[in-house]
Amino acid sequence: MPARFFDAATLERETPRLANPSDLVFRETGCHGVAEGAALAAVGAEGHLALAKRRSARATCAIGLSPRIVDPSVVGRSRGKLAILGLGPGADDSRTPEVDAALREATDWVGYRLYLDLLQPLASGKVQHPFDLGAEEARVSHALDLAAAGRDVALVSSGDAGIYAMATLVFELIERGGHADWARVEILGLPGVSAMQVAAARVGAPLGHDFCAISLSDLLTPWPVIERRLRAAADGDFVVALYNPVSQRRRSQFAAARDILRTARPAETPVVLGRNLGRSGESLRITTLAQLDPADVDMLTVVLIGASATRAVSRPDGGHWVYTPRGYASKTEGAV
Amino acid sequence: MPARFFDAATLERETPRLANPSDLVFRETGCHGVAEGAALAAVGAEGHLALAKRRSARATCAIGLSPRIVDPSVVGRSRGKLAILGLGPGADDSRTPEVDAALREATDWVGYRLYLDLLQPLASGKVQHPFDLGAEEARVSHALDLAAAGRDVALVSSGDAGIYAMATLVFELIERGGHADWARVEILGLPGVSAMQVAAARVGAPLGHDFCAISLSDLLTPWPVIERRLRAAADGDFVVALYNPVSQRRRSQFAAARDILRTARPAETPVVLGRNLGRSGESLRITTLAQLDPADVDMLTVVLIGASATRAVSRPDGGHWVYTPRGYASKTEGAV
Repeated sequence: MPARFFDAATLERETPRLANPSDLVFRETGCHGVAEGAALAAVGAEGHLALAKRRSARATCAIGLSPRIVDPSVVGRSRGKLAILGLGPGADDSRTPEVDAALREATDWVGYRLYLDLLQPLASGKVQHPFDLGAEEARVSHALDLAAAGRDVALVSSGDAGIYAMATLVFELIERGGHADWARVEILGLPGVSAMQVAAARVGAPLGHDFCAISLSDLLTPWPVIERRLRAAADGDFVVALYNPVSQRRRSQFAAARDILRTARPAETPVVLGRNLGRSGESLRITTLAQLDPADVDMLTVVLIGASATRAVSRPDGGHWVYTPRGYASKTEGAV
Repeated sequence: MPARFFDAATLERETPRLANPSDLVFRETGCHGVAEGAALAAVGAEGHLALAKRRSARATCAIGLSPRIVDPSVVGRSRGKLAILGLGPGADDSRTPEVDAALREATDWVGYRLYLDLLQPLASGKVQHPFDLGAEEARVSHALDLAAAGRDVALVSSGDAGIYAMATLVFELIERGGHADWARVEILGLPGVSAMQVAAARVGAPLGHDFCAISLSDLLTPWPVIERRLRAAADGDFVVALYNPVSQRRRSQFAAARDILRTARPAETPVVLGRNLGRSGESLRITTLAQLDPADVDMLTVVLIGASATRAVSRPDGGHWVYTPRGYASKTEGAV
């Protein structure tokens, strides 16, 4: 049996027919009875209350009786659902089938305009809500509003929605409060492959041992916090994946990050620059920490900086594989 | 036109017919002529050398002439290919279509027995090479041997093959040397969703800001190195994903890791324990750094330990969402 929901104003219109109207309930919810009101709203004017409300520790129920069969699809609305989806790098064959299924099931798609454009082959019948770059709070608020109104909403991010993308803002906005209906939305998160993983798979296995991910964007994070993380990454000898290495107004952070890591690991440490990975115009470059130049990166680049153990191995085609060994055993045992 | 390959012994049998046999080439390759030998081997006994070898800076070529049409599929062998595949958490709908396509294309599958079992619906016609847990070097060597012999091999890992899995060992074994044919294999890496991403998506967005991944396995990494990384993670206030938190013989590292992080972040810091994610018997628990008990984790658990900014928010169903805000703006601006 599908669960259906009513807003407080609809329930309040049933007040004259309630068996147990309550001012306390009204002050908390905006209607004088939730269970009885919902039962009456579901059966409509021709129906009546068959069982007045009963309470248990965790729920209250009431039963309405209708002279006709009730069609649940036109009674009230569904709970509303928000699927937070990671599209992976961008190509159709790098999205998981569970993400595709959630896209097909959704009534509404919310996301950055260019990501929705990538999905047009699946878009038939969808209400699309494209947003411009940067309007993240408006985007997520709109998605929550739609879901709270009973829509089945897909909020899309490229890569993994949980890594430097939209997912965390959903929970941040819910916690800020002021929208009790947002907290009641059913939320489903489905992961996707993030840019650092694509860069790593293309080039070998640079993330083959302990690594960290650091965003160089100081839009929401003060530079001293970012700098502290970079120093810790250097101290810990982590492989470092840098997201948002530069922006149009911001380039100095990248040079500072490079300089911090240069103090702690060899000049010839391999560095991987992946740009537009998984989309047309993809490029991948291998360089070294010594030769790394901020001019080599842009907003669409993910940067992987090796740990001290990370190695570049010649390929017969003249290129290199980059990998970080699983441990330190091969160093002490030599070439076995 | 497909490229086809011959081993040195096959080429050496063409020595009597070579226009330019070379002792130098023999010492380097094990046959007296590569280009002419290959042309002659391709056209067979009825053919002859139409053009003797010519050299450029990067290549040498020779042309053979056959009285019949040459069927390339029965001449020599293909180059051999190794696809390093991440299966994601395990369910069919969490594997990317590009990984499925590589599995279908492969002639041979190599992997841990239980992962191959997960793939049985696609297994028709595949030669399977199941390995027991722990036999990683034997597994990867076998995959490289098969590919070097011209097979189209899929080497499978759960999660992302590039994150604490098989990929890095491929390049480590190639670099160790002793198998020149391994280095000539065509290698394709395709990423998958790793366990920390599944745990994060299920529970909210704990990886929503800078994070690191640390394996607590001291099988190949000495404990002082792991400990240094844990201290750096504490200093940098990273969200920490712990892989391989314990094993059957090893439990003390997990308590030590917890104690290091306890010194640097609040007792109520949220901790997520994800076990068997994406498979039957999946479980997910939310606890705090203060209450975290080594008895709560096993070999199949991935552990996410929040940063100081990570928050647990009540859900209407009595559970919690865990998320790490994108930055620090919300702290200073208050609830807007």
